[in-house]
Order: sequence, then structure tokens, then C-alpha cells
Amino acid sequence: MNEKNVQVLLARRPKDAAQESDFHIVETAVPGIRDGQFLVHNRYLSLDPYMRGRMNDAKSYAKPVGIGEVMEGEAAGEVIASRHTGFKPGDKVVARTGWQAYGVSDGANVRKIESTDIPISAYLGVVGMPGRTAYIGLIDIGQPKSGETVVVSAASGAVGSAVGQIAKIKGCRAVGIAGGPEKCRYVVEELGFDACVDYKAGRLADDLAQATPNGIDIHFENVGGEILDTVLRRLNRSARVPLCGLISQYDLTEPYGLKNIGALLINRVKLQGFIVSDHAARHPAASKDLEQWLREGRLKYRESVVEGLRNAPKAFIGLLSGKNFGKQLIRLV
Amino acid sequence: MNEKNVQVLLARRPKDAAQESDFHIVETAVPGIRDGQFLVHNRYLSLDPYMRGRMNDAKSYAKPVGIGEVMEGEAAGEVIASRHTGFKPGDKVVARTGWQAYGVSDGANVRKIESTDIPISAYLGVVGMPGRTAYIGLIDIGQPKSGETVVVSAASGAVGSAVGQIAKIKGCRAVGIAGGPEKCRYVVEELGFDACVDYKAGRLADDLAQATPNGIDIHFENVGGEILDTVLRRLNRSARVPLCGLISQYDLTEPYGLKNIGALLINRVKLQGFIVSDHAARHPAASKDLEQWLREGRLKYRESVVEGLRNAPKAFIGLLSGKNFGKQLIRLV
Repeated sequence: MNEKNVQVLLARRPKDAAQESDFHIVETAVPGIRDGQFLVHNRYLSLDPYMRGRMNDAKSYAKPVGIGEVMEGEAAGEVIASRHTGFKPGDKVVARTGWQAYGVSDGANVRKIESTDIPISAYLGVVGMPGRTAYIGLIDIGQPKSGETVVVSAASGAVGSAVGQIAKIKGCRAVGIAGGPEKCRYVVEELGFDACVDYKAGRLADDLAQATPNGIDIHFENVGGEILDTVLRRLNRSARVPLCGLISQYDLTEPYGLKNIGALLINRVKLQGFIVSDHAARHPAASKDLEQWLREGRLKYRESVVEGLRNAPKAFIGLLSGKNFGKQLIRLV
Repeated sequence: MNEKNVQVLLARRPKDAAQESDFHIVETAVPGIRDGQFLVHNRYLSLDPYMRGRMNDAKSYAKPVGIGEVMEGEAAGEVIASRHTGFKPGDKVVARTGWQAYGVSDGANVRKIESTDIPISAYLGVVGMPGRTAYIGLIDIGQPKSGETVVVSAASGAVGSAVGQIAKIKGCRAVGIAGGPEKCRYVVEELGFDACVDYKAGRLADDLAQATPNGIDIHFENVGGEILDTVLRRLNRSARVPLCGLISQYDLTEPYGLKNIGALLINRVKLQGFIVSDHAARHPAASKDLEQWLREGRLKYRESVVEGLRNAPKAFIGLLSGKNFGKQLIRLV
């Protein structure tokens, strides 16, 4: 093989906002495989907000990426060599091979893509981890009932866009919060949300009140900070808050001070932090429903595709500040 | 009847900290009763933190007390006249007759005290609403497992002291947070908690870390503010936070800004606001267990008794700043 592997390494830990210089790009040999392993040539790398946490040397969901190590992440690609009985060349897979062109896997936590009618990239988005996150957070934790009002922040993102559409499928009023009129228009006109509040317009509390005349029964939180604080004041009695992410906080050294926690007490609210990987038993059901809804045209999605692994750091930094529009991907080949 | 009724009325709404001048004490005629009603002569009035919320004209659990109305609250007393088939003179009852010497009831939400071996005042505390609050919050919401670590703030108070003792009954490590060495000593030496952190000593984070070497699995929150923010950093994965009260915040115009909410996400924590009155179906089971544990000597309690209804405003203001030690009561006769 004449090809070289390209890898994005963590060069240093960010002090606050992540910068391109926190990453280091290298060319290395394409790795060999041993018995029980196979080699994947990645076509798409998924960029996700949780990756910011892995850059810190602090307790988070998982252990941090080490300095000089390949950045962690999920990619979709094709098996090109195999010494594993379960995988053969030509198989399409989603695996946690990280930010690199070629990755070796032993098959653990690998999803084989059997369908041919769904684009491979969707397995990193609407029918992949972000879609399952939306499904489990909204359905299992949020327990939506028909007629309830569901609010989701980062509404045009990979998770948020699925949350609102699943809320509609479940008979709820879906209200998004997104940054800018273009994202809001997309969320309402293309995804079918009932309303969307542009948090950049500077009238968050008023606009949210107008968009949620009956209050909020479920708030699916991806953002945190002032957005969460404002939403708390609109929660109804017995509301549920699936806490999925706090992207507004990841680059801060001093987090936002949340003032309205009293609303959780007064309204008997359940706020539940969750990580999709804890709910593996529910993944098959989630994937089945998501794929079916996608085929039925009831789940739409948008991708923000950047060409080339060398542009991954810049795209990732953009994702953290909401520059993406839909699922952020890197196309490798 | 030559007696006069004494009533404590809400004179005005506090701007921030409640003051004695926010209350107004009047003498009125002892009320008469109609068919289906009975008259209670109150012996003990319960003072509870939730009453501070009723003084505000803002959305809370229940509608606020009106200006010039009798302050709401629960009292234990004796029926002295009855035109109600279910209650006769001599019956001991706990009823929401408010801050007054004599109250009329139609029997709704009245608890008749049948036992004779438990002091009547305990029905306002350890075997009453505060005890049931501890029971339902810890057992139903907290779901304690033997060997887990349970932390409770306001640990020497009516609710907190029961929480820690029930945690011990359930095989947990019980750690209190209380104000001052005397309360901490009481919590450990008399109530049998494993440890107690004095938040007034100025080393809250360090002392809490030392008292919870295996982290915190359940935090029963009565206080909020900096105490909650500090506890959040010690929570274990899948921890539960029954949110019962936020007494540190009730007198503030600008609430404390909670910074460590990220810990709820990282550790997949469930934070659940609750009000004991929502869980009426569980009250009989709670009362039965609490009375049994009290008789077995496994539940201890302490009362802070102030004589005379005229001293209720001052005692209530003291309760809000932690001046009480154990269940705060007013003795009327």
C-alpha cells in the first residue's frame, strides 16, 4: 500500500476556547492488522460537541485523550483488509477509529451497515449516535405525551433536529431554540417544528414565552448557560429536562451561574443527565424506529460537510460556536 | 366562651429578608362553627421553611397568603366543639388551621391522632409532614442502596435529621451538613450520622471530601446555594438529588448562580424537585414506618419550642437563618 495514513493528534490541552494549534496533524504509515482485527478506510468522520471534553484533563464521561494521541471519534468507512471472522473487505462500518484516515478495529462497538438505501453518512447522524441520543433522551427520559410542549436547544444540530421531529411524531408541540434566522427558518419550514426562537435576537425570554403559550413540559438541553436559565422559568409542573449537553460551557473556564434552579423545586421537575452509551439495550429499538421514520420521510436531516481531515480542527472549533448547520462531518475520500 | 382568638396575619410582602414587621398580630373572637365543621384549640404550631414562599406574590407550590390573611400552616390541637360526624370534642388532630389559637376545619386533610404513646408535637415533626418528606424524598426518589453514601443539608433540622437516620436504617453512610459545631456534634453523637460537615467553618469543599471518601450517591437538598454547588462536585455516577428545599435562597432577591451543573451531565445524575403533598398515596406507609422506627428508638428528634403565638414571627425569621435546633414549634397552650 502506497497510501499514507493522516492522523489528527491532540497537541496540548486548551486553557479555555479550543484553538487549531491545540491539534497536530501527522502522516504515518497505514497500520497493519493482526488476527482478530480489520482495517477500515474512513470516508466520513463525525465531529461532535462531546469531543471537547476529551481534550481536557478532567473527569468527564470517559478518560481524556492523551497528549500526542489520535483524537477520539466515530467514523464511517469501508473495511479494506480483515483478519476478523465477522468482517470482510467491502463491509461498511461505523467504528470509533478516531480522527484518522485509516483505523484498526477488533470489532468491539462496531456497527455494520447492512442497508443500502440510506447514505453511509447518516449513520453518523440521524440514524446514528446523535439520532439515538435524541430518541433515548426524548422518549425514555422525557416521556412525551401527546399535546405536550417540547423545547430543544441547538435545534438545527444533529441531535436537536431529531428531537423536534420525534416530538412531532409523538404528537407534541415542538419548539426549537437556534442561533440566527436562517437556522430558525430551516427548523420550522423544513423540519416542521411549530416554532423556533432565535437566541441571538436578544429577546430570548419574551420570544420563548410567545412560542410556548402553554409553558414547557419537556426541555431537551444541549446548550446550558443563559438559555437553560431562561427555559427554567417556563417549565410546567412535573416537567422533565433530559440534560444531554452544555455546549455553551465547554470552552469557559468559569461556568455560567444558573439562577433559576428554584423552578425545579416549585414545579417538581426531573432533570436527568444522560449519555447515550449507557443505554445500549435501547439502541436496537432506537435504530429501527429512526431508520423507519427516515424511510417514511418523517425524519429529515442536514449535513455540514467539510472536505479533508486537515480541516477537521477548524471545523470542530466552528461547531463549538454554532457555525455548523446540521450534522458536522469531515469527508475523507 | 370568654377566650379570644389570637391570629398572626401577613401585614405586607417582604422585599428580601422577612422581618417581624411583615406580620401583624390581632385578637379576634373565637370563630363559630356550622354543620360539617369543628373547632380546634391549637396546642402547637409548626414553623416550616416553605412558609417563606407563601409570603411572596409569586408562583410557588401553592397560592400566596393574601395581605391581611392568617398565615398558613399546620398545627396540632384538640377538638373543642364539633358539628362534624367524624370528629368529636377531645379528639387530637393535626390540621392546616394556620397561625392562630383557634381554627375551624371541615375535616379535609385533617389527620386524627389515634396513638397515645407518641407526643402530639411529634405529629408536626418526625412522624408528621417533615418525617414523611424525609421518607418519600430519600426512599422513593433517592432509592438508597445499602453501602451508598447519603448527604443531607440542614442535617439537624426536622427533615434533615430524619433523612440521615433513615439512611442509616437503610444501611447507608449518612453525612450531614449543618451550621456550627454544636449541631454537628448532635447529628453525629445523638442521631448516629457517620459524619457531619460544619459549613460555617469555612472549609466546606475539603471537609466534605474528607467526610465522603467514596463520593456521594444521594444528596438530599434542603439548602441550595454554595452548599449545593459544592456537593455537586462530589457526586458519583448515577447519583440522585432529591430537591426538597432551598432555604438559603428564600430571602434573596438575586439567587446564587449555580456553577457546577456540568456535574449532573457528566455523572448522569437525576435531580428531582418534589413536594410531599404530591405523594399522598405514600403517606400511610411512610407514617407507619416512621411511627414504628420512633417506637423502636431508631428515630430520634429534637424540638426547638418557643412559647406563645406572639413570638412566632421572630421564631420563624430565626428558622430561616438556621437559629433553630431541630423542629421549630410554637407552643400555644
